[in-house]
Amino acid sequence: MWRQVISRASRSPLQARNAVFLKGSALQRRQLSARRTAPSETISALRELLGDRLSTSRSVLEQHGTDESYHEVAPPDAVAFVESTEEVSEVIKICAATGTPVIPFGSGSSLEGHISATFGGVSIDLTGMNKILNVEPENMSCRVQAGVTREQLNTDLRATGLFFPVDPGANASIGGMIATNASGTTTVRYGNMKTNVMALTAVMADGRIIKTGSKTRKSSAGYDLTRLLIGSEGTLAVVTEAELRLFGNPEAEKTMICSFNTMKDAVDTCATVMQMGIPVARMELMDENAVEAINKYSKLDNAVRPSLIIEHHGSPGEIEEQSAIVQEIVRDFDAKDIELATSIEERKKLWSGRHSAWWATLSQLPGSRGLVTDVAVPPSKLADVIVETQADLKETGLFGAIVGHVGDGNFHVMLPFFQDDPELMAKVKGFSSRLVERALQYEGTCTGEHGVGLGKMKYLSIEHSDSVDIMHTIKKALDPKDIMNPGKIFYGKA
Amino acid sequence: MWRQVISRASRSPLQARNAVFLKGSALQRRQLSARRTAPSETISALRELLGDRLSTSRSVLEQHGTDESYHEVAPPDAVAFVESTEEVSEVIKICAATGTPVIPFGSGSSLEGHISATFGGVSIDLTGMNKILNVEPENMSCRVQAGVTREQLNTDLRATGLFFPVDPGANASIGGMIATNASGTTTVRYGNMKTNVMALTAVMADGRIIKTGSKTRKSSAGYDLTRLLIGSEGTLAVVTEAELRLFGNPEAEKTMICSFNTMKDAVDTCATVMQMGIPVARMELMDENAVEAINKYSKLDNAVRPSLIIEHHGSPGEIEEQSAIVQEIVRDFDAKDIELATSIEERKKLWSGRHSAWWATLSQLPGSRGLVTDVAVPPSKLADVIVETQADLKETGLFGAIVGHVGDGNFHVMLPFFQDDPELMAKVKGFSSRLVERALQYEGTCTGEHGVGLGKMKYLSIEHSDSVDIMHTIKKALDPKDIMNPGKIFYGKA
Repeated sequence: MWRQVISRASRSPLQARNAVFLKGSALQRRQLSARRTAPSETISALRELLGDRLSTSRSVLEQHGTDESYHEVAPPDAVAFVESTEEVSEVIKICAATGTPVIPFGSGSSLEGHISATFGGVSIDLTGMNKILNVEPENMSCRVQAGVTREQLNTDLRATGLFFPVDPGANASIGGMIATNASGTTTVRYGNMKTNVMALTAVMADGRIIKTGSKTRKSSAGYDLTRLLIGSEGTLAVVTEAELRLFGNPEAEKTMICSFNTMKDAVDTCATVMQMGIPVARMELMDENAVEAINKYSKLDNAVRPSLIIEHHGSPGEIEEQSAIVQEIVRDFDAKDIELATSIEERKKLWSGRHSAWWATLSQLPGSRGLVTDVAVPPSKLADVIVETQADLKETGLFGAIVGHVGDGNFHVMLPFFQDDPELMAKVKGFSSRLVERALQYEGTCTGEHGVGLGKMKYLSIEHSDSVDIMHTIKKALDPKDIMNPGKIFYGKA
Repeated sequence: MWRQVISRASRSPLQARNAVFLKGSALQRRQLSARRTAPSETISALRELLGDRLSTSRSVLEQHGTDESYHEVAPPDAVAFVESTEEVSEVIKICAATGTPVIPFGSGSSLEGHISATFGGVSIDLTGMNKILNVEPENMSCRVQAGVTREQLNTDLRATGLFFPVDPGANASIGGMIATNASGTTTVRYGNMKTNVMALTAVMADGRIIKTGSKTRKSSAGYDLTRLLIGSEGTLAVVTEAELRLFGNPEAEKTMICSFNTMKDAVDTCATVMQMGIPVARMELMDENAVEAINKYSKLDNAVRPSLIIEHHGSPGEIEEQSAIVQEIVRDFDAKDIELATSIEERKKLWSGRHSAWWATLSQLPGSRGLVTDVAVPPSKLADVIVETQADLKETGLFGAIVGHVGDGNFHVMLPFFQDDPELMAKVKGFSSRLVERALQYEGTCTGEHGVGLGKMKYLSIEHSDSVDIMHTIKKALDPKDIMNPGKIFYGKA
């Protein structure tokens, strides 16, 4: 699939300065069909270590070769259901001995094919490592195993009055969220995984177990391995435990939904709120298509116009003051259909639609799968990029729904498609490719929160040019046999 | 100097598990006397490149071998006054050809000997790269050269209504602040360099110029080289430009000073404020010695008791509400001498003392130099660590003043000493060593914001154990000749 993306994009003017990189990757592409299938001695050694917790059954392999992305991902040769950091270390040592790839697996909610056994190998399933090891309310932190899911953690934390704020939508595992540097609706207020993970336990390519970071709020002690591993997509290490920052549940919350005449008005409203420094806990954009899909799917009757949902967290006094200013701003931009909510039930109703946007959009074309784009741009460029993107959708004759974490300059176009419709698929991929190039021309990034995975490797080299070589030097130094999730971020070797 | 620290500390029980590391470093210590003096061909090539902007005059070398630390740092063989990223690249290429070390120099305000030419080599003076390249109010960001100082930047930004919040006290250069991952009084609210630097231009050990990060608020595009370089103390690259996040000047500010019966009451007050999630912009602790020194130095009459200064930034309504809650909390902990200020003049008066704490403490022993410790611990351990540290000061019969960024669990003990008093010096170093070991036992870090430099190498290996090997693997991969500020963070090779 992405061979096609590469060959198409190599015609782009933006590619010229990456000729050297692409030359290298062309060689690598030729090697891609080769697999490094786990040899029988590796499977035997793993079976001896794990017993029944090593599976080679077809259904299990298929399940571990499936995520929520549009990529046709490859199933692994075996799945290791691990239960401890030490077991992960043993599994990696066994695989390293024969150069067998290892691919960490959390909840399978990746949108960029991260769990694919692109070159074959062993999937390390971390769902059995789902213990919340320690909660320290007095430090506002907790330590969890990598297989703990976001919802599991917040359910468990309920009694403490604390919560873990990063919310990518899916009920992802903490390990997966670390792998992709996840963020989401609350990042504008509470930060992303890089700001909310304090320390890690991880297993390196030779099976060594390391601990990074510390439980302190800040440190200048050496290289920041924590943030090097966050967003490294399993290509440097398998993360097995994490120390997370927690926040107190806000005393009060207030949510507003409103609609605008144009997308530009909605985006300019957000820019004004940000520039005035008014604290928002979430600020989400939806275009007409997203609102319409959500209305149908969730049986709502929101005005089918570009819309914003804005939420404040704080003391009752603070949120009233913040909300009053924001209401003035949205009216300056001719907002209509303003609805406000403070009770949990009313707020839930306002958010219910937004949270189902992905499935609502897919349901517009029953039986479809979907591709979701993930660019982010500097705030000042957001309105232009979104307006041009809407025009492109119209010109291409594609159905797509836009939702955006606009406080962070990050938005998604959700594009349903049918895999047996090659013409539609080509249109969708062409549109996605143009969108990334547009974002890069506006000094943006190809991925705000989903990661590079299989789908953004080419764009990474355009976006980061020479520094991709530096990233690759680090990869080679820490994983000389290229066994750690090969074929993600960089074109791997077979 | 630090041979002494090492040999003393090798008696500590904490050292046992680092026997292997220390064995390695013992070998390296023997090599330390060897220098890699810049050969004459290197000096000639640099002179050809820079003309008068290459200096080998004794006074210039001495100045570039002087920082604000207690270390006896070594002057370089030559100083290159560079004016562009390209020149830095050329200088590094010339030095790399002969394996000559390069040491970046900003404002010389390091507290850990970072600017020392430990193995000889060329100091790259970046003070000529002091241009503010671009301010984008609509993106709340700016791009600066590495030699721009914090005060210069904020003076320049005044007309925009924006400011760069990281404030380490000294008028450090932005490049130096990046090198050490600086933070300071405002970090509890606005974050440190890791959260406020978005992108870098840097020159690698082979002279390659790379750009890291982007102008977007977030990205998941590949390894986070920006945060790998922040805090790497010039050992991986010389940073020449940075894209910084800016914040709007707060609409209103309110500052409170108050005093307590005990340090524990003061620290517990901070813990309560943090756990209740009340926003503070600064929250600074001073012990009796710090207050007394400041009173004398700045002609103030604050109560000579453990004290806090707490500041709020926000709208007038927000800061009144926040301040009211904090006033209740401090009274619960029997605070006295509560003074409040909202006008600039009154607030300046409350802060004037704190900002001069370092010089005030040194002035207590006229003619002294000072060592300042820099541990940080998890918030729940802070009170215990500070109480034990005060007891240690008393037992040792040392004069030291404590100030702390207590919202981050980070505090400094400022210890004046005379270099010609070896007994006092030994006491000071013994105390400092015990303090770091105490912090590490409480799951803390040896350095919250000053960096490892020359003084914390041994502790780094205790704190991070196996992961120091991973850091060193990265160092060797990116700087195989060990020319980038060798002898900092890791024991370098001669």
